[in-house]
Amino acid sequence: MRTKINLLGVLVMLGGILLGPSLNRVSAQEHPNLVLTKAGVERIRKELGSVPLFDASLKKIKVEVDAEMDLGIDTPIPKDYSGGYTHEQHKRNFLILQKAGVLFQILQDEKYAIYIRDMLLQYEAMYKDLPVHPKERSYARGKLFWQCLNDSNWLVYVSQAYDCIYDWLSKKERNQLEKNLFRPFADFISIGNPQFFNRVHNHSTWGNAAVGMIGLVMGDEELIHRALYGIENDGLDANAKDNDGGFIKTDGKAGFLANLEEPFSPDGYYTEGPYYQRYAMYPFLIFSVGLHNIKPELGIFEHKDSVLIKSVDALINLSNVDGEFFPLNDAQKGMSYYSRELVTAVDIAYHYGKKDPRLLSIAEKQDRVLLDDSGLSVASGIRDGEVEPFEKHSINLSDGRDGKQGGISVLRKEDLELVFKYTAQGLSHGHYDKLSFMLYDDGVDVLQDYGMARFVNIEQKGGGNYLEENTSWAKQTIAHNTLIQNETSHFEGKYEIGSQHHSELYLYDVSNDGLQVVSAKESNAYPGTEMHRTLVLLGDGAFEQPIILDVFKVDSKTLNQYDLPYHFLGQVMRVNFEYDSPSSLQPLGTDQGYQHLYLEGVGKPKTKNAQLSWLQNGKFYTLTTLTNSEDELLFTRIGANDPEFNLRRDANLILRRKNSKNTVFVSAVEPHGNYSPVSEFSVNSNSGIKELGLVYDSKDYTAIVIKSLKGKQALFIISNNSTSKEKKHTLTINKKDYQWTGPYHFITTKN
Amino acid sequence: MRTKINLLGVLVMLGGILLGPSLNRVSAQEHPNLVLTKAGVERIRKELGSVPLFDASLKKIKVEVDAEMDLGIDTPIPKDYSGGYTHEQHKRNFLILQKAGVLFQILQDEKYAIYIRDMLLQYEAMYKDLPVHPKERSYARGKLFWQCLNDSNWLVYVSQAYDCIYDWLSKKERNQLEKNLFRPFADFISIGNPQFFNRVHNHSTWGNAAVGMIGLVMGDEELIHRALYGIENDGLDANAKDNDGGFIKTDGKAGFLANLEEPFSPDGYYTEGPYYQRYAMYPFLIFSVGLHNIKPELGIFEHKDSVLIKSVDALINLSNVDGEFFPLNDAQKGMSYYSRELVTAVDIAYHYGKKDPRLLSIAEKQDRVLLDDSGLSVASGIRDGEVEPFEKHSINLSDGRDGKQGGISVLRKEDLELVFKYTAQGLSHGHYDKLSFMLYDDGVDVLQDYGMARFVNIEQKGGGNYLEENTSWAKQTIAHNTLIQNETSHFEGKYEIGSQHHSELYLYDVSNDGLQVVSAKESNAYPGTEMHRTLVLLGDGAFEQPIILDVFKVDSKTLNQYDLPYHFLGQVMRVNFEYDSPSSLQPLGTDQGYQHLYLEGVGKPKTKNAQLSWLQNGKFYTLTTLTNSEDELLFTRIGANDPEFNLRRDANLILRRKNSKNTVFVSAVEPHGNYSPVSEFSVNSNSGIKELGLVYDSKDYTAIVIKSLKGKQALFIISNNSTSKEKKHTLTINKKDYQWTGPYHFITTKN
Repeated sequence: MRTKINLLGVLVMLGGILLGPSLNRVSAQEHPNLVLTKAGVERIRKELGSVPLFDASLKKIKVEVDAEMDLGIDTPIPKDYSGGYTHEQHKRNFLILQKAGVLFQILQDEKYAIYIRDMLLQYEAMYKDLPVHPKERSYARGKLFWQCLNDSNWLVYVSQAYDCIYDWLSKKERNQLEKNLFRPFADFISIGNPQFFNRVHNHSTWGNAAVGMIGLVMGDEELIHRALYGIENDGLDANAKDNDGGFIKTDGKAGFLANLEEPFSPDGYYTEGPYYQRYAMYPFLIFSVGLHNIKPELGIFEHKDSVLIKSVDALINLSNVDGEFFPLNDAQKGMSYYSRELVTAVDIAYHYGKKDPRLLSIAEKQDRVLLDDSGLSVASGIRDGEVEPFEKHSINLSDGRDGKQGGISVLRKEDLELVFKYTAQGLSHGHYDKLSFMLYDDGVDVLQDYGMARFVNIEQKGGGNYLEENTSWAKQTIAHNTLIQNETSHFEGKYEIGSQHHSELYLYDVSNDGLQVVSAKESNAYPGTEMHRTLVLLGDGAFEQPIILDVFKVDSKTLNQYDLPYHFLGQVMRVNFEYDSPSSLQPLGTDQGYQHLYLEGVGKPKTKNAQLSWLQNGKFYTLTTLTNSEDELLFTRIGANDPEFNLRRDANLILRRKNSKNTVFVSAVEPHGNYSPVSEFSVNSNSGIKELGLVYDSKDYTAIVIKSLKGKQALFIISNNSTSKEKKHTLTINKKDYQWTGPYHFITTKN
Repeated sequence: MRTKINLLGVLVMLGGILLGPSLNRVSAQEHPNLVLTKAGVERIRKELGSVPLFDASLKKIKVEVDAEMDLGIDTPIPKDYSGGYTHEQHKRNFLILQKAGVLFQILQDEKYAIYIRDMLLQYEAMYKDLPVHPKERSYARGKLFWQCLNDSNWLVYVSQAYDCIYDWLSKKERNQLEKNLFRPFADFISIGNPQFFNRVHNHSTWGNAAVGMIGLVMGDEELIHRALYGIENDGLDANAKDNDGGFIKTDGKAGFLANLEEPFSPDGYYTEGPYYQRYAMYPFLIFSVGLHNIKPELGIFEHKDSVLIKSVDALINLSNVDGEFFPLNDAQKGMSYYSRELVTAVDIAYHYGKKDPRLLSIAEKQDRVLLDDSGLSVASGIRDGEVEPFEKHSINLSDGRDGKQGGISVLRKEDLELVFKYTAQGLSHGHYDKLSFMLYDDGVDVLQDYGMARFVNIEQKGGGNYLEENTSWAKQTIAHNTLIQNETSHFEGKYEIGSQHHSELYLYDVSNDGLQVVSAKESNAYPGTEMHRTLVLLGDGAFEQPIILDVFKVDSKTLNQYDLPYHFLGQVMRVNFEYDSPSSLQPLGTDQGYQHLYLEGVGKPKTKNAQLSWLQNGKFYTLTTLTNSEDELLFTRIGANDPEFNLRRDANLILRRKNSKNTVFVSAVEPHGNYSPVSEFSVNSNSGIKELGLVYDSKDYTAIVIKSLKGKQALFIISNNSTSKEKKHTLTINKKDYQWTGPYHFITTKN
């Protein structure tokens, strides 16, 4: 390989002389060839000034890099956690290096090459004798950063910078850098840390990409092979765990191709969830571009039915109307498709995929493109008016490498987005929340998933890392909108158990936009207990706005206490039941997340339909839930045993049913009306539901009736044991016969 | 007067025939003459289609009114509180009637006149025998609504509708309406309810305007006189109070002119605060337009040096960068200059004032205009490119009819807005918060004023009226960022006492944009205790962003406990002191608002500078406060004794100093850095303050030193007893001599 490069180099070097006197050290060899390519750079240079979004992006990057270069080079001795000075400086360095490399290629201004070389030589001088990072928290400590993960980030970006100035450097400089910096760096994060490198995990993906990318630039086949297939004999302990409690060892699978194979389902869902997919997409895609350019024979973008390209589509579909990702599993709220990783993902998926014009509309919102072939391609598409809107519809995405480990459904209707989770564990960042759901209205949290207890990169909050409360609260079942049995999280909150199981989709049918149904079952969260939840997005016009029916059927061999929390966000408007308000607040429990909840009120239902109304973001919502006289309604609030104020003080309502074996929870979540503090008009502030009832329940069928105040009545019957679309059913409810075909039946009548 | 109208009517009726066959009942007499005028309507009709914002506003109103008319007329028997069905329907009716009247005049489509007539006749039929409203809560119950206030709203709007169809109606119809509806209606809210009508209060302003406006339309001089000058012998009890605890009787002052005289300061500040000024502006202005048109000899817009026009300017200046009013006294947060009342205010102030082109920029944001002379004037100004930006600068506004009862200061610099309150009580909606301040950054609450405990017009929350917690929490001193002595609110929270006093401005100097100073004293809140607070907005570049210095000097004859709360909004990032976290939460006290605070932590300072950092809206803030070793730092949270979840669960930090007579609280509030959940970059998350110190304090001088981590040092000396700009001062601090002229001195040096 190297021979070939050098051979070609001589030929192309002759052409390089034409580029002008300021580039006297440039020899136009095959480099750049990793992300930028020689031909691509020529195309880009030819188009400069004629592709507005590309030009604007270039201008922005130039301003940013020039400003940073003005500050001089700073490569401090590593010392801090994320958010701390040395961490942030090294992070800034690798981001700027990559950009400077691109600027050097596109603008052919040598100052960028000099900057990169000088900084790299500073790193080289430091790295030679650099010990492992002084912070000891990580299961895989890095050298520049407290964890190998960040060291890998560094190398993924710096490889690109190195590629951009490769030809410009002298052979001596290259040798010096490769011998003292890149090769030892790559070895350290791989064979030096197999527990980090040799896994199926987003950490390893970064590690693999880092090693592979520098390998591609250096033409080092050993590194490339290691990156693609992992280390053969890693000597890892099968029971070892990482900082997040995830197992290190994954059935001997390792390397980039395994990482590409395992976590993505055939639908493109990434098992850790969108927040981590976003994070992992960068190394997946950028290394793939390198492989595409240098090892086209791998057909990396066609791998597994083009799963990488598909996964970008899935990721965008897992964002709300504002482009913010649904916070499944560990996820910081607010992360969105405006992030730099998604600029990469959208541009690469467009260019190396099928030029999906819907991606252009996302790129347009992002308002910037990558400064490479893919960015040029996107910016040109936008310039040429090829943009189509990215309309997000209801979607069901399977989980697991073979698509058989549960999944995620998003039901959408008007401004509502309901996200239903029946996935596998999602590796070590997974939450214990089988059959949970969250609800957004016009991009605003209405029934929230807490997300994670972490302030990423904010040093003050536990070094920017995961906080204790992430495990003690955010991962626990009670932090989610799903059922908790006997105040114990699903799988006892144990990763060893949870990672062996997944829920099963029972039914997903959005063929009727006015009656979208998703239903799934979970049999392993509590051995001996079967849970079956059905969510119906009912938008047939019976109510002012679409409403959600929530039917949660539980069958157990034992008597249990069931808690079903609704994490509503907003100001309580009214309840229709009486409750005691304690004069002082006590934690609701001692562990499993309950220790973080203060009990603000204990209510007893007065009628069969307990109601809670709240106001959020200028809109009213009412939860109507079917209650027994023995049920308790607990108002709780997050914040107990949180001495460092790491948690938000959000409320929730828990429906508690004691001493039950088999039971059905039936609720409706109803958005209605609106309020403006400017007009002070309050419109439709009351629920439109007259009655919610469970009219039939057996092993085979469950039937719900919902009556509106306007005089409409709807009956929803679900077959609990057959999803055949052909099967005919007959059922008598209250002496009336019903006949239908298929897994569920829905009839509306006038009262 | 009536004779004149009828005489003219005959003449103009002949002209009316020319208007076309569809208007066969229209006689173009002197009506409309209240808000719309005959000449004005002609001008408007001539300009139709050529003034974009006017045309757009007309279109919107037409769509709205037509839609409402399609629903048919509904005048239900009064029954509900605000937010309830009958209340909202009658409210909607009067708003639509007024608009329909305007549409009739401008579009000359008789259907609007018919609609108005028919609805008025329905009201007439109902009103004759209508008893007082069944809800008993108000001190002045209305008939259509639960309080005379809302009945007055109705009449203010309906008078305008009546004026628009006056000529179109038959004499018989007019007689019927006036005899059975308007005159008794006007009598009921005035002589029937002198405790409502005969005060200096926004309630009375509405009552006065209502009676006056219908009087103007009817040509009823008795009503007009009553409106302008009040009822002479009202027989009111001098000790009687309204629902809000305000005194009814105001030194025998009553009527519209007194209401115009009393509450406005010469600077245009309205003593109740901007939220209520916004509410009161409508009757003030709309009745004034009527008086201007029909009784120009009053010179109403020139009254008190054009105070009405000035007050609109003041009101806009009391809004944050998003146009939301600072929530001084009882005020619902979010109310802004986008409200319909401010559309009226801006249009009228522009047209009847000096055509201030800055007002056009507000009107542009409002994106709608009144459908009358003033709206046409504004829309034409915008069309003709006369718009100038309304730049809001630092401002000081006196309170009190003569401007001698304290005031309000707003210090502005970059994105920061600091609002300092040293007013009079502000009538019955006033809060007990002398020398309090609130802080906004780019329109976001950083140190909040709670506002009021009320959800206006939301029936579910106490009928949309004031909640108990408004008195028990929102009005109390502890709910504000100011000093509380011995856990007792200012003036013991008693209106009788508070309404007799006001704070005194000591100093306001914004001549140096980088060093803006405001200072005021309060001697009556706690007899025997002198409070003197100085706030400095320091934007001289010593810190990344402008910071606030807060110097609160207290001198008392007795030993007291002082509490100084900072109602910070956002997520706690870090504190530099240790604190205990209770395992259960107890209320901090039993009354004066303390019963609503849970104690979440009790800290002891470790150093002389206690620090709390928090994150709000993507920005970091640090409070640095000078502490003694005996001080306590209390983390508290609102929500105790709030069984109906009427209060928000916001936090605050209270600096508590016990057993003190004379002391100085010195703090700095420092915005710094930023954080984005999309980039996950955390920039400048740490305070830039190295040290804050009190280096001198005597009866005459207080001196503060502040050192930055970047090596700058600033000394601020304030003279406590002389604000003379000419006076020369000399002072020795730590053996160093300082000399300066004027009330304060500021020096920066390098450390």
